[in-house]
Amino acid sequence: MKSIIIASTSTLHEGSYLEYLLPTLQSHFKNCKNLLFIPYARPSGISHDDYTQKVAEAFATINISVKGIHEFEDTESAIKNAEGIFTGGGNTFLLVTQLYKNKIMQLLAETVKNGTPYLGTSAGSNICGLSMQTTNDMPIIYPPSFQTLGLIPFNLNPHYLDPDLQSKHMGETRETRIKEFHAFNSIPVLGLREGSWLEVKGEKITLKGNLSARLFKQNETPIELETESDLSNLK
Amino acid sequence: MKSIIIASTSTLHEGSYLEYLLPTLQSHFKNCKNLLFIPYARPSGISHDDYTQKVAEAFATINISVKGIHEFEDTESAIKNAEGIFTGGGNTFLLVTQLYKNKIMQLLAETVKNGTPYLGTSAGSNICGLSMQTTNDMPIIYPPSFQTLGLIPFNLNPHYLDPDLQSKHMGETRETRIKEFHAFNSIPVLGLREGSWLEVKGEKITLKGNLSARLFKQNETPIELETESDLSNLK
Repeated sequence: MKSIIIASTSTLHEGSYLEYLLPTLQSHFKNCKNLLFIPYARPSGISHDDYTQKVAEAFATINISVKGIHEFEDTESAIKNAEGIFTGGGNTFLLVTQLYKNKIMQLLAETVKNGTPYLGTSAGSNICGLSMQTTNDMPIIYPPSFQTLGLIPFNLNPHYLDPDLQSKHMGETRETRIKEFHAFNSIPVLGLREGSWLEVKGEKITLKGNLSARLFKQNETPIELETESDLSNLK
Repeated sequence: MKSIIIASTSTLHEGSYLEYLLPTLQSHFKNCKNLLFIPYARPSGISHDDYTQKVAEAFATINISVKGIHEFEDTESAIKNAEGIFTGGGNTFLLVTQLYKNKIMQLLAETVKNGTPYLGTSAGSNICGLSMQTTNDMPIIYPPSFQTLGLIPFNLNPHYLDPDLQSKHMGETRETRIKEFHAFNSIPVLGLREGSWLEVKGEKITLKGNLSARLFKQNETPIELETESDLSNLK
């Protein structure tokens, strides 16, 4: 049975890394003593080692040890044998490129679908959707495909930002960008604000956190979904 | 001799479409009675016809007539025979995909290098660089390559935004994203604020407009370049 947490962000303003999620993660990973971390997204370009160290420090507070996938010679076995898996944020183009390059995109999807508990934040959440086409990230590297894990039957826009009505900036708002996506794609897009996450238990998908989320469907006016909304039938 | 205007944005806050650039464009396109418009980037998903109509209305005020490239049966001839060319903003992934699909990326580069006056705004400016890898746009479609026109020997970040120090949003700043680009790429990136443009005359590249621009080079601290700076030696 699938058991997945898909979070908009790892970190809230004035909070420390993963702090707001730790009570949730303690329960989510209750049967894990060791966690496999996928550091491929490399936020700000930091090294796999440094990123893994940062994650290990956060999980140490709930008595879970962390090992980076780059520390394993056999990445396939690392995924197959993992008690739990966490993919952190950073650049989604880089993350997806590395998953394909190391030939583990499909294996990771199968493993999580078969029940290995998974946590994604930001870029690590983006890849839970059908494609990475609603990421906010810069295309710093050319991935072999935009297709991702498909753990849920729609797409996500993490770090969702409402239009700033005071802004004098003329660059596209997030809503405009998603509208452009829907000019060519019929996949629904859930804008997850920082502090929201999705809980996936089997086929049940629930919006968690204190905030509402914004749902964009092709040719429809966007709507707000309250926390605890059931998204199991969204596709 | 190359004659190119590369603008951060088409429109300033509280201004109308292309308004702030019209005096510059009047001189830039002084030998053009007819302009070829490339509407492929389709901002907000509008149609090629609607986009071309909007551009035609702006250029009518300086007595230049506009025809969209989609109105020509033979797009190659349209480019070869153009008196001047304008590529408008919107989604860079879509623009680049269409240029490759219609097999005119290389022809467009050659034509502009050979002296046909060119104007780019936003996405139409992004493609003037070596690659589209420093766009802000969403990857709504998968292009066959990220390589672009290479009219200048560096990359651009149009609509450049300084970090908002008051913001509680934890998504990456533009500076962080460009730093991630430089973890893997050595191409310099010029952050062009809204209201700035580059003027290219032959091999001379000059920063224009009232604002400074922010220059990012791999492994170097970013610097501010004043308007009228000569960028001819940047690469």
